[in-house]
Amino acid sequence: MNLPRVYGMSSSGNCYKVRLLLEQLQTKYEWIELDVRTGVTRQPEFLGKNPNGRVPALEYEPGRYLAESDAILVYLAEGSAFWPQQRLERAKVLQWMFFEQYSHEPYIAVARFICTMLPAQDARRVELPRLHERGYQALAVMERHLAPVRFFVGDAYSIADIALYAYTHAAADGGFDLQRFPAVRAWIARVESQPRFLPMPAAP
Amino acid sequence: MNLPRVYGMSSSGNCYKVRLLLEQLQTKYEWIELDVRTGVTRQPEFLGKNPNGRVPALEYEPGRYLAESDAILVYLAEGSAFWPQQRLERAKVLQWMFFEQYSHEPYIAVARFICTMLPAQDARRVELPRLHERGYQALAVMERHLAPVRFFVGDAYSIADIALYAYTHAAADGGFDLQRFPAVRAWIARVESQPRFLPMPAAP
Repeated sequence: MNLPRVYGMSSSGNCYKVRLLLEQLQTKYEWIELDVRTGVTRQPEFLGKNPNGRVPALEYEPGRYLAESDAILVYLAEGSAFWPQQRLERAKVLQWMFFEQYSHEPYIAVARFICTMLPAQDARRVELPRLHERGYQALAVMERHLAPVRFFVGDAYSIADIALYAYTHAAADGGFDLQRFPAVRAWIARVESQPRFLPMPAAP
Repeated sequence: MNLPRVYGMSSSGNCYKVRLLLEQLQTKYEWIELDVRTGVTRQPEFLGKNPNGRVPALEYEPGRYLAESDAILVYLAEGSAFWPQQRLERAKVLQWMFFEQYSHEPYIAVARFICTMLPAQDARRVELPRLHERGYQALAVMERHLAPVRFFVGDAYSIADIALYAYTHAAADGGFDLQRFPAVRAWIARVESQPRFLPMPAAP
């Protein structure tokens, strides 16, 4: 039997999401490490796996691929406790995953990228004030939602929590201060106490 | 019985997606028109419906809300021909919907917003070259995928097509030229020939 194979960069939050779920599902997999800084994901061989040139990509059977971290999470989680059985709860999980990709990751992950992967005097640092403004807006939405609940959807740990945990817990890497978000910090601790939790590797 | 109620702005592609699907499902609904330019979606009353302050929001039962256009599409499409029965095809639909929200909408929809909703000399026009560069990258990914197929997933019209049609067909509003993307243009024509197709209102 062929194991599912993940093409990813270990320190990327989007790739880590997939690894964390696979570990928590106790699914065996192969991990192919790619360093996006070398440009390898923009070369023809990888574009044949994901024409959008991004990691992670899941090779779910030999020569067949699925891209987009949150779509991969749904695919892997179907039939497990990490993907709700009720239609409305599934839609709420997706709501928070689309929130993550549209209103959260483009600010919190990009600030982390600029602060940890680019030289200290890189021109892109001028983007940081706007990234912080928008990222703090996303954190405020999360804080308000999490204040009365334990997890994002239906009082149970799901792939919505995995998707949002990845970059939120590492927000300080991009210059965010989580001290003012006590409900977010309590939720981070709950995620980290889940069975088979695996920490994300530090940025290189 | 209470009808589902959509809070939206008719000329917004994200809101139009929801209306197009509802029409094609032949589901009765109420439409509450909101003009985001007035700031109404950032006021407390609307933030109670969607704490992220964006349209569309679906009131699926009185006082209960679902946000994020593509999550709403999945919720409404479950059990219909617009949402595949096979797990892998569902994941591929989601892959293209996350592509749309991450790699397509932030460039093609934002360019349209700047060109149609802001004054002709607005300072944000400096963003257009970068928006065009990234938007054309997304269109090139679509062109390559669509060249040998009729629809995005599984040779059938799905909510992936609805999600990507919304802003793609109106890309010229933001200064994009679709002439160089013949497969995209042929796909647009196929979408527009679907039963109960409803055109998107022009930008105000």
